[in-house]
Amino acid sequence: MVEAGRIRRFLEGFRWEDVEPRPYKEEGSAPFKAISRQALFCDRALACELRFFDIEPGGYSTLERHEHVHAVMILRGRGACLVGREVRAVAAHDLVTVPPMTWHQFRAAADAPLGFLCMVNAVRDRPQLPSEGELRELESDPKVAAFLRGAAKA
Amino acid sequence: MVEAGRIRRFLEGFRWEDVEPRPYKEEGSAPFKAISRQALFCDRALACELRFFDIEPGGYSTLERHEHVHAVMILRGRGACLVGREVRAVAAHDLVTVPPMTWHQFRAAADAPLGFLCMVNAVRDRPQLPSEGELRELESDPKVAAFLRGAAKA
Repeated sequence: MVEAGRIRRFLEGFRWEDVEPRPYKEEGSAPFKAISRQALFCDRALACELRFFDIEPGGYSTLERHEHVHAVMILRGRGACLVGREVRAVAAHDLVTVPPMTWHQFRAAADAPLGFLCMVNAVRDRPQLPSEGELRELESDPKVAAFLRGAAKA
Repeated sequence: MVEAGRIRRFLEGFRWEDVEPRPYKEEGSAPFKAISRQALFCDRALACELRFFDIEPGGYSTLERHEHVHAVMILRGRGACLVGREVRAVAAHDLVTVPPMTWHQFRAAADAPLGFLCMVNAVRDRPQLPSEGELRELESDPKVAAFLRGAAKA
């Protein structure tokens, strides 16, 4: 018995057979730039989902936090990430753990995309955006401020 | 505050910072060859685990089945997999879903390693090995028999 969908081929341009690229979030719901989302594994029998996020050069994910944990593996390209107050350059196959209620953002390098896998619990809370005051507090750290301006080294 | 372990670098030879390579299974507990296991994400806050299995050229995982689902992404190399009665060549970034109670095995090509990510529920049942009769039934399909002999094209 051959059942469709058990094996899904990797396609050109970081796409997969039978996987629909989706907008990252609803436009205008939160700040982000040049990022797409593909749900690679999203199965009722699995307690987690595995998604692939692809950020174009110069793009970035939303700066946000939530109770649920992100388990990230960079899959391609180069960029930087903010986790709490830590700013780090990341490249293919590096692992990033985002603990509960920790501000985080991913940014592609100016001259390279950044594509990453992100494993999350299927049941999870909604992300929170920083208030003006929280943003000011984050920006009080020069390294974090440079990252948020897109001026971190990747 | 910089906390250790939030970002773990990818190292040479498909290793990661702060990740201990483990034996695949207890020696002699089940048939397998030239395969190692690294738990990349194994966190109480996550309902799944993400593991990396690396198979040397000519090696293979155990032929087994279980109630829990495997969500696999090939990360490097080439090989073939058996899922049910389906035998398919696989290469980097292909996705494989192993449904409940479905016989499956991964085999590296003779001349290339096969490394893959495998997401599973943290709470899961133990794998079952095929009985003599179940093995004979699987081998009644020539394609499956060739795969199990290590003679499938990868």
